Amino acid sequence: MSLKRRNRLSLEEYKSGVLSGDRVGLSRAITLVESTLDSDNELAAKLIDEVYQYTGNSFRVGITGVPGVGKSTFIESFGQHVIDSGKKLAVLTIDPSSQKTGGSILGDKTRMEKLSRSHQAFIRPSPSGDALGGVAHKTRETMLLCEAAGYDFIFIETVGVGQSETAVKNMVDFFLLLMLAGAGDELQGIKKGIMEMADAIAINKADGENINNAQKAKKEYQNALHLFPANENGWIPKVKTCSSLNDEGLQSILELLNKFNLEQKESGFFDKNRKEQAIHWMHQTIHHFLKQNFYKSPEILKKLSNFEEEVRNGNKHSVQAARTLLNHYFK
Amino acid sequence: MSLKRRNRLSLEEYKSGVLSGDRVGLSRAITLVESTLDSDNELAAKLIDEVYQYTGNSFRVGITGVPGVGKSTFIESFGQHVIDSGKKLAVLTIDPSSQKTGGSILGDKTRMEKLSRSHQAFIRPSPSGDALGGVAHKTRETMLLCEAAGYDFIFIETVGVGQSETAVKNMVDFFLLLMLAGAGDELQGIKKGIMEMADAIAINKADGENINNAQKAKKEYQNALHLFPANENGWIPKVKTCSSLNDEGLQSILELLNKFNLEQKESGFFDKNRKEQAIHWMHQTIHHFLKQNFYKSPEILKKLSNFEEEVRNGNKHSVQAARTLLNHYFK
Repeated sequence: MSLKRRNRLSLEEYKSGVLSGDRVGLSRAITLVESTLDSDNELAAKLIDEVYQYTGNSFRVGITGVPGVGKSTFIESFGQHVIDSGKKLAVLTIDPSSQKTGGSILGDKTRMEKLSRSHQAFIRPSPSGDALGGVAHKTRETMLLCEAAGYDFIFIETVGVGQSETAVKNMVDFFLLLMLAGAGDELQGIKKGIMEMADAIAINKADGENINNAQKAKKEYQNALHLFPANENGWIPKVKTCSSLNDEGLQSILELLNKFNLEQKESGFFDKNRKEQAIHWMHQTIHHFLKQNFYKSPEILKKLSNFEEEVRNGNKHSVQAARTLLNHYFK
Repeated sequence: MSLKRRNRLSLEEYKSGVLSGDRVGLSRAITLVESTLDSDNELAAKLIDEVYQYTGNSFRVGITGVPGVGKSTFIESFGQHVIDSGKKLAVLTIDPSSQKTGGSILGDKTRMEKLSRSHQAFIRPSPSGDALGGVAHKTRETMLLCEAAGYDFIFIETVGVGQSETAVKNMVDFFLLLMLAGAGDELQGIKKGIMEMADAIAINKADGENINNAQKAKKEYQNALHLFPANENGWIPKVKTCSSLNDEGLQSILELLNKFNLEQKESGFFDKNRKEQAIHWMHQTIHHFLKQNFYKSPEILKKLSNFEEEVRNGNKHSVQAARTLLNHYFK
């Protein structure tokens, strides 16, 4: 993903690279954050500390939907509206599929070509992460860097099949779910848990012969959303139709986002949510480093595969093996 | 859930209580496993070690479906078929809702009354668990105790809204998903991830005016299941209709389970799956105890709430607070 060998910059250089708003400087800092080297991680932590006071000023939006719903095209067109409103936009994409299969749903094809040419936009795929579940951790730090670099909107895109959505929900202000009309609901693959997270549903591809279906689906989803318990913040999730292709309905979705932002800030729930998320992230970070410390300790690196073999052969049972390894680790 | 004050038995008494097949002895051992006291945990670990050689001989079945699909009635009727085939059945129910809301979807109402009167059956709700995610851990140990007590079938029931299903999938041999026909698919709330896990789907309440809908749904789900990649074990997920009320289709589902059991054992995939699950559980156990050790350490117990307050007030950022706490912990 990142360059295997690169000249590492000094903390000061990374910092000024980010704060200058220059896309190359930001990219380099993100590469540092994404690194799995311990020395890089230390420097990355210092960098985040240094720029932290410049973060938090963006509107963070999670965008999800299953493959085929048209997320890339939506973000390409919708992002243009954000930019046209005078705002800078960063798009971070998380693709968990590459973790499981080695392949990638998003693939290497050039995505969001038009958007990526704009100087007001910054597009970055997130790495697939390691077994220690660092994806969310690194995505969140990348988001902070983008904020320090002056981006007003951050979109975090996920594939919508359940692996990353909860993590993303816990780092954004607004969660947008893209759906299709008439695709056969049972095949859309969106779990109820994700619908419950949504602050808005946008029914995409509402164009051509699809318009009637989209209107019908809009009503259905509105009804469905009423079945969920009300949000503490008083916001009632909205359903919109749009066509990324014909550029229809997108401005109305942007207005909805801005309305949410304003209302939630006035009511204090915006800040309250951010505070709760911060606590949550403290604990997530703790869990992440506890695991990392364990699996990277020399004692465990030496013994783990033997123990796995013993468990596989039935010579040790899982909990026994775990306890013995833990005893070695804590010794 | 458990008696607050009880006479703790000796390891030998717990062991013989479990191995005797006596339901009271088994219950007491499960209460020990469910305890959150350190001293109980130690004894429980020893007990699992002692009985481990008697475990692994049951057919482990995960059963899930959203509230309203009729899980209790299904298990009540289906369980009777298991018992009638001369097998002993243990039913463990996991209710994650009680964790979030304080209330419980399953509630305190008496469930599976008929089944619970049979001496061939043992029914036990799993505790809601703590913040450290111990639910799955304790459910798995409870399952082992039931096996040591001679139960041939273990059903692990979950609510099907996504919190526990992955954990359960990782501890069972067969995963059964209950669905309804004609309930409006978008409201069934089953995520695609859960459908992908299913070795069989049973469309419940296929009775009265529902029969046609159930047949139609059966075809739809069969088509949907074909969209998923084939399982490594060569098993093609089946769709069945049944009526728990009229006791229809249940024997056919039991035959399906037995066919799966036989085929998978012959092909070696049964054993392969169990081995992979054992490795997985070793790691899950490690993660669980790493967190437990951290959050129960005196240093962290003393400092945690202050740090949470600092993060909430914005005096520290999440990762900074996490790192400082980790430094105190590892010192």
